[in-house]
This record gives sequence, C-alpha cells and structure tokens, in this order.
Amino acid sequence: MKKIRIGIAGYGNLGRGVELAIQKNSDMELAGIFTRRNPADVKPVTAGAKVYALGDAAAHKEDVDVMILCGGSATDLPEQTPQLAQWFSVIDSFDTHARIPEHFAAVDAACKAAGTLGVISVGWDPGMFSLNRLYAESILTEGGTYTFWGRGVSQGHSDAIRRVPGVKRAIQYTVPVEAAMDAVRAGKNPELSTREKHLRECYVVAEEGADKEAIRKAIVTMPNYFSDYDTTVTFMEEEEFLKEHNQMPHGGFVMRSGVTGEGTHQMIEYSLKLGSNPEFTASVLIAYARAAARLRGEGQTGAKTVFDIAPAYLSPLSGEELRSHLL
Amino acid sequence: MKKIRIGIAGYGNLGRGVELAIQKNSDMELAGIFTRRNPADVKPVTAGAKVYALGDAAAHKEDVDVMILCGGSATDLPEQTPQLAQWFSVIDSFDTHARIPEHFAAVDAACKAAGTLGVISVGWDPGMFSLNRLYAESILTEGGTYTFWGRGVSQGHSDAIRRVPGVKRAIQYTVPVEAAMDAVRAGKNPELSTREKHLRECYVVAEEGADKEAIRKAIVTMPNYFSDYDTTVTFMEEEEFLKEHNQMPHGGFVMRSGVTGEGTHQMIEYSLKLGSNPEFTASVLIAYARAAARLRGEGQTGAKTVFDIAPAYLSPLSGEELRSHLL
Repeated sequence: MKKIRIGIAGYGNLGRGVELAIQKNSDMELAGIFTRRNPADVKPVTAGAKVYALGDAAAHKEDVDVMILCGGSATDLPEQTPQLAQWFSVIDSFDTHARIPEHFAAVDAACKAAGTLGVISVGWDPGMFSLNRLYAESILTEGGTYTFWGRGVSQGHSDAIRRVPGVKRAIQYTVPVEAAMDAVRAGKNPELSTREKHLRECYVVAEEGADKEAIRKAIVTMPNYFSDYDTTVTFMEEEEFLKEHNQMPHGGFVMRSGVTGEGTHQMIEYSLKLGSNPEFTASVLIAYARAAARLRGEGQTGAKTVFDIAPAYLSPLSGEELRSHLL
Repeated sequence: MKKIRIGIAGYGNLGRGVELAIQKNSDMELAGIFTRRNPADVKPVTAGAKVYALGDAAAHKEDVDVMILCGGSATDLPEQTPQLAQWFSVIDSFDTHARIPEHFAAVDAACKAAGTLGVISVGWDPGMFSLNRLYAESILTEGGTYTFWGRGVSQGHSDAIRRVPGVKRAIQYTVPVEAAMDAVRAGKNPELSTREKHLRECYVVAEEGADKEAIRKAIVTMPNYFSDYDTTVTFMEEEEFLKEHNQMPHGGFVMRSGVTGEGTHQMIEYSLKLGSNPEFTASVLIAYARAAARLRGEGQTGAKTVFDIAPAYLSPLSGEELRSHLL
C-alpha cells in the first residue's frame, strides 16, 4: 500500500513533534521538511530526511500528499496556510479562536481555487476540546459547558513575564481551580468568574540585583494576562529552574452538566493530561492528515474543520475492522 | 423551518426517554408512537401524542422522517430494524457488540433496497464510548485503551439475580475499581483481569423464610455473571429497597494511556456520570436522528454507525455558528 507522504512546514517544537508522530504511523512517511531557515542548519531527527527552503515548496507539489503547517497563529499561519494551499492539501493548528472565521474563509477560497483540501484549527483546543463541546451540547441540549485548562504551560503568559525588566527566565503554569470543577461536577451549574476558574503560577529567575518585589508586582498587576487572576510568583535559582521547568506539559477538562427528562442530572467529562503539548498536538495533526489525504482522494476540496470530518477517516483501520473491534 | 418528524417504535424506558428528549429539541416533533401493545393501553407523556399499532407502521411512512427503535437487542432489534428500514430511515441502540457486523449487514441491505438510511448501535456504549476509543487510538497510536463501566445498574445482572430461588427483588450495580483506574492514569499500562477491573454489588429482597446464605452463595458462584468477580450481596427490607434503588444510574470511563516521541506519557480520559441511563441513551439517539434526517436529505442511503457521521450533523447550529462558538 502506498504511504501517505507528509510535508512539514516549519521545524520548531511542533514540527519536530510531527516528525516523531510520523514514525509511529506505519502508513505515513516524511516527504520533506520545509523551513525559512537555511536548510543546511536544520538537523532532522529522521535519518536521511530531506530539508528544503520553504520558498521552494511549489517545486515539490508532486511529492507531498499533505503539508502540515507548524508555524504560529499570530503571523505565520494566516499567511502560509492559504499560500501553501495553492499547491498542497494542507492542515494547520490555527488557534486564535476569534479569528477562525476569517482564516477558514481564506483557506477555503485558496483550496477551492486550487482544487486542494485544507483542515484548519486541528489540535486539542481548538480540536479535541471543540469536538467534545459539540458532541456534548448536541446530546445534552439543556445545561452548561465548562472548559478548564491546565495544569500546563502557557507560552503567551511565560513570554509576557519575560518582558518584565529584571526577569532572566520565567515560566507560567495555568492551574484549574479544583473547587470550581467539583461544583460543576455536582451539577450546580455555577457562574464562574475568570478568577474562580484558574490560578496562575509563575516561576521566575531574576537578573542579579533585580528588585524582586517590583518584578512580582509588575507581574500580578499586568492587565489582560494576570490582573484578573490569583497569581503566585516564586523566585528560584537558574540551575533549579532549568532542571524543574524544562517540559511543556498541558491539558484540561471539557465538562457538560445537563439535565434530561424531568430534571435528571447527566454529566459528560473529557480530559487530557499531556506530558508534552506540542507532541500531542502533532499526533492529532497526523491523524487528521490521514483524513485529509483520504477526503482529497475522494475528490473533496475546500476548507474543513474537525466538525466536518467523520471519525472513521482518522483511523488506518477499515470500516469492518472498526465495527468489529472498537464499536 | 420544517421540523424533523420522529417516530418511536417501542414504548418502554428508552421510548419514553426519546419522547422526553424530543421536547428538549425545538427542531423536532413527535410523529407517533408505535407499539406492539394495544395502542389504547399506552399513555404517552406528550399531550395529544398519537399511538399506533407497530404492525400498521407502513401506513405512516410519509409521516415520519426518522423512526427510532427502542426495543431490546436480544430479539427485537435484529428483526425490527431491517423490517422498518423498508419504509423509514431508522436508528437503533443495538448493543450486542459481538453481533454488530451481522446486524450492520442486515440493516445495510434493507436500507439500500428501500432507499432509506439506518444508523445502528447509537447510545453510549456502543456509541459515545466507541467514538472516544476511535479518536483516542487514532491520535495515540502507541498505548493501551481501557473501558470501565459504572457505577451503574446492569439490567442483565439484575435479571440473573431475580431468577435465583427465594429472591423477591434485586438490583446489581457494576462498580469500577478505583485502584485499577489510578494505575491506568499513572501510565502503568497494567494488564487487568476481569476481577481487577470491576466489583459487583447486589441488593436483594428475599422472599419470607428464604435461606439467605443459599441465595448469597447462588449469586456469587453464578458462572459468567458473578463467579469471575468480587461480589457483595446485601439483603434489605422491601420498603427500603423500593426507596433507595428505583433509579437507573450508569456511566463509566474510556481511558487511553499512550506515549509520543521518545516516551512522553499522554493521557486521554472520557467519562459519563448518568442519572438515568435510558434518558441519556435517548438523548444520543435524538442527536443522531437529526444527523440521519440530514444525511438522507443529501441523498445518502445504507447503514452507518457513529464512526461514519461527521460531528457537525448532530448539531442544529450551522457550520458558521459552530466555527464561531464551539471551535
């Protein structure tokens, strides 16, 4: 059987995660890594992997079945996904929730013009969490949906701390509040403020001689990022920091608390506990890349999301096998 | 907008659950209840609801968009689903896992011959649990999948106890073993025996003068049902039994413990805590009835399962609304 040939556009943590995920899927192979850096400077994990300049991607349109975009949502994907859709079926993990409609429209137009297929916003949120919100709300039409994130590293909040004067290294963990989750599970349908849902834990290495109290105050009062939360700031030595905070765990919970009939409480809960956020996102991307290759093979074009794709397309197993073993 | 007209075939706990679920979905209406009993003996919850003899169903083929079959899997559904598929698009909750392939084939043949659509094995297991097994295994290809059931009432086991001489009333709760679930969550990928996964709790009202020790022994040694489990038998007075054991709660857990990259642990967990098993199953059936009506409207025919249906079909919201609000 012919393998699905995957291209990786962008080789950071996510791109490397995709490369590793290909190795765990025997129906896939790595066609090439496409980078904005000098290709000679990229050292893939896979022996013999080809590295190309992203600007030369069009020349490889016959060699790639699905191009997985691994850039950032702020500036990379809004430009790159529609552009690469001119030549490839594409898939990305675009995660700026508010801008999904315009990104969908741009990718849809590019795909339809080129006769390619694009799947956007694939990962866990958006992605698996979105799916669980949709399934749960379609089943329990009367009720409340709650999403909690963590315990996990927020890159955006970590970056914000690193911009505070006197901060040498920093990391921020988003932590869901157990009491809030328990109230939801008990069917209380609480109205929860931002502060009641999540805590923010910050670990900071200060520059030598920096005013730690000033740093702490700058962090906890920072608007948008921290001022609406209960935030703790823990200072530590660099050596300890590098040893204890070098992973990217994350996860969270989607809960739907609803009622059926004459008020019977029903509870649906989905949770992820991820040792590595980028490696998990990469694994979701790879499963949907399989779906994208198949849907394109059936003649479909245009933009899709996880909502539009039947689950069977994600699995290498046949319909008969799925019905026998997993149903 | 024209409402989706739902027929209910079989009016027990599940059929009544479907009737109640229709009332929580404003795009649906009850077209009629079809029963093997004397229609005059059926008292629907819905004011003015029509009740027909199941044998006369064919006469109502133009009045029903989707027929939801609410009979049992042992003898009702293998016969009724293919039969009613001659006239209606159908949906059932067939849950005899081992016989799903033959049931699928029978419904598929009937639907294709008649130009109707059938969705089989819809509910929570098979159903939502199956979906979660499929999604989780497609994402985390290296790992173990574990399904735990409970705490909840097993009808089959309750029935088995009631056949023991001297038993007047009985109910059985399946209880997942917390220690086993915690071992899975910790990434230990344990090999679990039947006994290590679930406990069985039995509550029994004995006939007057019955030998309780003989009843207890007959239960705990019963092959297939109890002998492979740690089983407790608690005797109680009838009044207390009727007060405390008159609900049908159930639920359970689907867990996937996997690794990505060079051995990073990743954990996916889906759980249900259901106040009423039949009302929840009915709510899943109704969501998939919406999908069935739409798929049939697009010209599709034949048998499908939850694996074959894109999630967006379950929701009354448009693609644009779903992308804006739930993605």
